[in-house]
Amino acid sequence: MSSEFLDALTAALGPDGVLTGDAIAPRHLTDWSGHAPVQPLALVRPASTAEVSAALALCHAHCVAVVPQGGLTGLAGGAVPVAGAIALSLERMNAIESIDTATGVATVQAGVTLQALQEAALARGLVFGVDLGARGSCQIGGNLATNAGGNGVLQFGMMREQCLGLEAVLADGTVLPMLRPMQKNNTGYDLKHVFIGAEGTLGVITRALLRVYPAPRARATALVALPDFEAALSLLSLFKSRLGTAVAAFELMWRDFVVASVDWQQLREPFDAAHPLVALIDVTGADEAALREALESALGEAFEAGTALDAAIAQSGAQAQALWKIREATAELPSRMRPAINFDVSLPMADIGRFADTCRAALSARWPGQSSVFFGHVGDSNLHLSVDGATVGGDADAVETLVYGLVERFAGSVSAEHGIGLHKKAWLGASRTPAEVAAMRAIKAALDPLGLMNPGKVFDAA
Amino acid sequence: MSSEFLDALTAALGPDGVLTGDAIAPRHLTDWSGHAPVQPLALVRPASTAEVSAALALCHAHCVAVVPQGGLTGLAGGAVPVAGAIALSLERMNAIESIDTATGVATVQAGVTLQALQEAALARGLVFGVDLGARGSCQIGGNLATNAGGNGVLQFGMMREQCLGLEAVLADGTVLPMLRPMQKNNTGYDLKHVFIGAEGTLGVITRALLRVYPAPRARATALVALPDFEAALSLLSLFKSRLGTAVAAFELMWRDFVVASVDWQQLREPFDAAHPLVALIDVTGADEAALREALESALGEAFEAGTALDAAIAQSGAQAQALWKIREATAELPSRMRPAINFDVSLPMADIGRFADTCRAALSARWPGQSSVFFGHVGDSNLHLSVDGATVGGDADAVETLVYGLVERFAGSVSAEHGIGLHKKAWLGASRTPAEVAAMRAIKAALDPLGLMNPGKVFDAA
Repeated sequence: MSSEFLDALTAALGPDGVLTGDAIAPRHLTDWSGHAPVQPLALVRPASTAEVSAALALCHAHCVAVVPQGGLTGLAGGAVPVAGAIALSLERMNAIESIDTATGVATVQAGVTLQALQEAALARGLVFGVDLGARGSCQIGGNLATNAGGNGVLQFGMMREQCLGLEAVLADGTVLPMLRPMQKNNTGYDLKHVFIGAEGTLGVITRALLRVYPAPRARATALVALPDFEAALSLLSLFKSRLGTAVAAFELMWRDFVVASVDWQQLREPFDAAHPLVALIDVTGADEAALREALESALGEAFEAGTALDAAIAQSGAQAQALWKIREATAELPSRMRPAINFDVSLPMADIGRFADTCRAALSARWPGQSSVFFGHVGDSNLHLSVDGATVGGDADAVETLVYGLVERFAGSVSAEHGIGLHKKAWLGASRTPAEVAAMRAIKAALDPLGLMNPGKVFDAA
Repeated sequence: MSSEFLDALTAALGPDGVLTGDAIAPRHLTDWSGHAPVQPLALVRPASTAEVSAALALCHAHCVAVVPQGGLTGLAGGAVPVAGAIALSLERMNAIESIDTATGVATVQAGVTLQALQEAALARGLVFGVDLGARGSCQIGGNLATNAGGNGVLQFGMMREQCLGLEAVLADGTVLPMLRPMQKNNTGYDLKHVFIGAEGTLGVITRALLRVYPAPRARATALVALPDFEAALSLLSLFKSRLGTAVAAFELMWRDFVVASVDWQQLREPFDAAHPLVALIDVTGADEAALREALESALGEAFEAGTALDAAIAQSGAQAQALWKIREATAELPSRMRPAINFDVSLPMADIGRFADTCRAALSARWPGQSSVFFGHVGDSNLHLSVDGATVGGDADAVETLVYGLVERFAGSVSAEHGIGLHKKAWLGASRTPAEVAAMRAIKAALDPLGLMNPGKVFDAA
């Protein structure tokens, strides 16, 4: 059957559309999660929605499973091939079909890289709201399938909030052409939200309508020293009330992170005193002077209220970069921690400080001398945490059990922005009830009755 | 069986929880859509999520259908009872459980009225992002079930964008406690989006976590005369690029609307000349003077670009009210048109002007001397249109056929914010493909296999 199936696929998509064996580039065998490579039955590379539909219809007829692949930058293993299944790459569907400046809507194919969209928007004086480190490789389809977050969520929201319309193909090849660009459209169920964040388990996203915004003309950056987490929350709500959605970033760094960053990158301590917490704040606007003035007046209020102990305001782009350099110590993690055991969790905002203290204490109680750094996009309730494997006997499983157990106790999320994929399946129950997972399975069975779409990802078949 | 069922319901919810016959207030027999009253088997009034769950489990066991009811202000008939089914009102679940100022999260029960939430937020210096005319009666649960829009969508989005978490009860009584307040939470399917906008056909929304924002300290209002619709789009994108999300309202009124408004309300013409289009713009911010200055400088650019022909900027709250008075002619529609045949559609933004011209011409060709007014929340791609029934021979069906036919041709939406309910079922196909409706039916069958939730609303069973 397999050769008959592959012949039919090749007849439908042409020789460039179906690769097997050594013709499949190694990068398609796994993703950035570091999962062991898996050889798929074939790598299918459709060049159009019609070809995606034809390929899925053939898979459905032959009961062959499908693993959709975007830029393969995922950290949860969601795009790792499955033996006996095809890997379906959107890489040939990489056209930016249009960008309408007047209405702020971009029409793109799923294989467009995030950076290609960002650059096309900038060339028209616009910005796309989502940005993340893998921008050069990750693709819009994968960004949507994982509801990517990254930088800019505070100001623009996650991928879900950028999406006005979606074209998706179901397991049997049915095309859902949900590409109406209206902000208001209450005509039955809003199906696009079913596919966003489903990690390719319900269908293949082929095209999307995305919001683009006028590029801000001015940006100001400040680093602020804080006495405690409550002060960070007060500072954030003060900034939100004074500058509203002009607040583009509110990054929090605990002392352990600042110490590591300064040491690793040979930087000067940002402040004379060793403050327990430091917030890095970006604000954007139309007018440089007005923005600077609003930032300084908000900081003035914070000093009076005692929520800010010290502050540095960048007087130039170079100074802003220097302030951000402290936050960018994360690039050093892979080389400085042996290995880095990384977490991407979210928590009810008010509890983030208490969670960080509790978690650090629990790690130290279990592994005296453990070394870890706490930081995050606190404006989005997102906390990152990296533990040096060498200081916990390399027992990543025990560290995950401890950290995710605490996340469950704090009613948080074991995955803020990376998704579940393969690697967090065991922890899904820490953030979702059995009834919720049962409802997910019911929706999965309704849209993919044969269970062919990205099998074994997010949750296992019941 | 029915009496046995009612006895069991009464035993579970108490006498206050189950009303029958004349004990049911007439207002529960229909909604603001004007649909003929329908007597339900019983009016069930649970006082807690546990009671909602118990009631639905009993309905499931006895195969009795359920029509959820909020404030009954819907215009599409979504909450009209079904003979033989119970009506389940959330009116007793009307507690605002908490409003956290520091993190901007409100926890409310589904029966809280929109106005009660707005006032509780304001008392804490916060605003809730959604506002609409029925605020005093409509309930949060109904607002979520219909993904309500109204004023403020341009700045804050619709109900969907306000919702951080949702508690819903499935047809069999299963409770889905999805009340984690994190902005980032990528742990499997985001089920809340399945229930938002489903008009009660998938389950009953019982509680929600909603965003609240710092109340703006300043507001400025301007009325701007425009040469054509393209100028309106240019003006909107100019304002978005100069003032970003400070743009709180961008309402467009065509000449026919302005003429009717001035006549009905005995107002002075806003400008010396009869301009084809008038835009009403609200901007909000932290500082009165800075906001006024930004508004005036943006208008200055518009005059230079020729997109603005004339403008009036309110110098006081009273003047702002006077400008808004022109837009509020809609309150006069029921008494001035005999009857008013109203439409709530949305269209791709760039096509709204062409649609309005085409639609007006088509109406006049079919009914010479027809009288209609065109206006809308153009910033949200939402167009409203009211036709005087007396000038089209009272043939509402023919007018709907003409208008919705055009909406389909323009790839628009037959319901921007009112939903489908009963009254727009016949037109769902104008905005959604058969494959999309089939996918909706599959999800419906997955979560409500017996078809008990709000049967016959949005679409009929296959």
